[in-house]
Amino acid sequence: MAFRLPTSQLYRAAATPTASARPLLFSLASSRHPPRQLRLLATPAHPVTQNNAGSKGPTAMVFLNMGGPSTVDEVGDFLSRLFADGDLIPLGRLQNYLGVFISARRTPKIKEQYAAIGGGSPIRKWSEYQCTEMCKILDKVSPETAPHKPYVAFRYANPLTEEMYRKLLADGFGNGKGGRAVAFTQYPQYSCSTTGSSLNELWKWRQRLEGKAGPLEDGSDGSIRWSVIDRWPVHPGLVETFASNIEKKLAEYPEERRKDVVLLFSAHSLPMSVVNRGDTYPAEVAATVYAVMQRLKFSNTYRLCWQSQVGPQPWLGPQTSTSVEEYIAKGQKDLVLIPIAFTSDHIETLYELDKEVISESGHADTVKRVESLNGNPIFIDALVDVAKTHLDSGITCSSQMGLRCPGCKSDRCLESKRFFAGQQTLPGH
Amino acid sequence: MAFRLPTSQLYRAAATPTASARPLLFSLASSRHPPRQLRLLATPAHPVTQNNAGSKGPTAMVFLNMGGPSTVDEVGDFLSRLFADGDLIPLGRLQNYLGVFISARRTPKIKEQYAAIGGGSPIRKWSEYQCTEMCKILDKVSPETAPHKPYVAFRYANPLTEEMYRKLLADGFGNGKGGRAVAFTQYPQYSCSTTGSSLNELWKWRQRLEGKAGPLEDGSDGSIRWSVIDRWPVHPGLVETFASNIEKKLAEYPEERRKDVVLLFSAHSLPMSVVNRGDTYPAEVAATVYAVMQRLKFSNTYRLCWQSQVGPQPWLGPQTSTSVEEYIAKGQKDLVLIPIAFTSDHIETLYELDKEVISESGHADTVKRVESLNGNPIFIDALVDVAKTHLDSGITCSSQMGLRCPGCKSDRCLESKRFFAGQQTLPGH
Repeated sequence: MAFRLPTSQLYRAAATPTASARPLLFSLASSRHPPRQLRLLATPAHPVTQNNAGSKGPTAMVFLNMGGPSTVDEVGDFLSRLFADGDLIPLGRLQNYLGVFISARRTPKIKEQYAAIGGGSPIRKWSEYQCTEMCKILDKVSPETAPHKPYVAFRYANPLTEEMYRKLLADGFGNGKGGRAVAFTQYPQYSCSTTGSSLNELWKWRQRLEGKAGPLEDGSDGSIRWSVIDRWPVHPGLVETFASNIEKKLAEYPEERRKDVVLLFSAHSLPMSVVNRGDTYPAEVAATVYAVMQRLKFSNTYRLCWQSQVGPQPWLGPQTSTSVEEYIAKGQKDLVLIPIAFTSDHIETLYELDKEVISESGHADTVKRVESLNGNPIFIDALVDVAKTHLDSGITCSSQMGLRCPGCKSDRCLESKRFFAGQQTLPGH
Repeated sequence: MAFRLPTSQLYRAAATPTASARPLLFSLASSRHPPRQLRLLATPAHPVTQNNAGSKGPTAMVFLNMGGPSTVDEVGDFLSRLFADGDLIPLGRLQNYLGVFISARRTPKIKEQYAAIGGGSPIRKWSEYQCTEMCKILDKVSPETAPHKPYVAFRYANPLTEEMYRKLLADGFGNGKGGRAVAFTQYPQYSCSTTGSSLNELWKWRQRLEGKAGPLEDGSDGSIRWSVIDRWPVHPGLVETFASNIEKKLAEYPEERRKDVVLLFSAHSLPMSVVNRGDTYPAEVAATVYAVMQRLKFSNTYRLCWQSQVGPQPWLGPQTSTSVEEYIAKGQKDLVLIPIAFTSDHIETLYELDKEVISESGHADTVKRVESLNGNPIFIDALVDVAKTHLDSGITCSSQMGLRCPGCKSDRCLESKRFFAGQQTLPGH
């Protein structure tokens, strides 16, 4: 393999607090940061540190996620982009035809679902809030890379990757001026369908908008220098946020029943064709679940289930909805659902879990869902710690990202991985 | 759920060394125990501690595993038992007919494979060795439960569960005399197909051979008191053994290539019907892999693959053999295979990995397999630590074992779980 990157640093920091990470991690326990006021921003604010003498900043912090339609009117476009993405839903040579057909057919039903959760997905407001809050703290704890400027790039909804990239250029990054940007996936566990697809899209727009930049005197080409936070499945702050949310939800059950509540971790499923190609997601989701259960000292029994299967192809199971039905049929009615692979509320929590699985279970009083991470200050601290560790490490991405799936046949994937893992050593750079 | 067991103790001990476990775990690092002389025993010896005044022993330590034919002549019986086991290979109502048919058809080919690896499986000799060595050390570190007597119960080969149980009775356990026995699964990660099947078999023979025992004056019925070590996927000693074996194998590559070797963890696959029923095995195997990679500080890139798929039904992938071929086709010829879900050599390592996957890869010089745990003294210490923690805890099994799979329809599974999780509270006991 061509990629030899000292990612051990990144992971070591995740497993054991490093010196630089300790103050933040310590704050997780001591609640040094009081819960912050939630401020929802239509567009991310760009904090500027006044005294940034000696700073290597500004640094663009770009949150990657799938996104969701903020209004019901955006549902059609959202679905057509989603079903056109062969990285997410592999439909083969008929992708463009089948994708349009399926998305058009599903649009009315999905519009109703978004209407039912208040007229749109809250993922944009949460992503912008999380990124902005993270950047504010980063300006304090990492003055050498300040100011940190928050951006969001969604794969299927506004703000799309192209829009984010053009904003970056307009804000003074790239275009001969260089500058640093960090692509920070908001999928804690890596899948080629999610983070991989977002990175392929980022690489595509980077090539389109900056690919022809000419060389400068310092040997660089003045384009944006990208690095990637591509996975953080067992980061202690992430694990702490999940675990404390579970404890809060368990406390709602009467004490005599609390120990017997079953925890059902639920992650978005994958088609078996993606699993069998060698996607790393199922094993990394399992690692998150195990880390959360260790933090909870295995206080309750648990299972990992998979949700949101669609279409006739086989997907990874057991299915969340079926598992809830089956446990109830066995007499186990105290169930806590934990969305474990997404950091914000979205249609899969607010509609699929709350309005389908729980409401239709017939036991909405005893089948509950833990809060999503959203604006949780423990989670914001976790984001800061992941980002700071990455900024300190100087790595471009994890070495694990450089390893393609055994069954991968995608040239786009190959080129995108090559770019992010080794852009400094690419010919002409 | 009827099972409220303080298993947090068991897991806490696995995650963090307890006071009682520390001396042994410490020895993992300091190699306090020099490598032991390998002594292969036809039958396990029963060490007896001379001074066991005040001991609650003797304690029978029973290793559970699938087993393998020790000679080529035993292959037919082994396969017919294996394919008759609906917990392992679910063939539905035609299990008995189809099982006989498939096993008869496969016997000649499998005989050749056992002939090729020396005329039989070494799993019996390793299991007896491991259990005997563990018991010797337990006699020293846990005098209050000494003497510890080693037994092995295989699911499909001699010594079968029935044979082991009759031996227990002949040795003075049960039959009105009570006594304590620990069923210690040698599958570190729990699957209903493996540990579950072994426990169902143990429960069956317990009911047949002791089920009608009458009550004694102390309220017990004089039958054997069973407890179960049902999973230990991230025990630090287990993780250390895997990690140090990987480091040893990596050291065989020239230094300049070492960082670029890809680690392929390989576990026995499961039919998707079992995965989709909610089996815990895939997630626990992933937890082991992640723990090993954390211990290795993510020094190399890696993937988790699944081997030994058989028949036309869909199984969990990616397949180990295909993954090796695909990486070689991509130019990645330095590959280390790590059998991660089995503790001894057996046909799947000695034949399938060594003689099929590696020999047929065309790169037997650069595709290598790490040693199995076998007689590794670090592993023996790990077994001692797992056992001692269990004996100290007083628990009957993990609470996680009490939770059936959401899709489980097996009454045998229900009854067996009820027995092991709550035998003290069963009516009439």
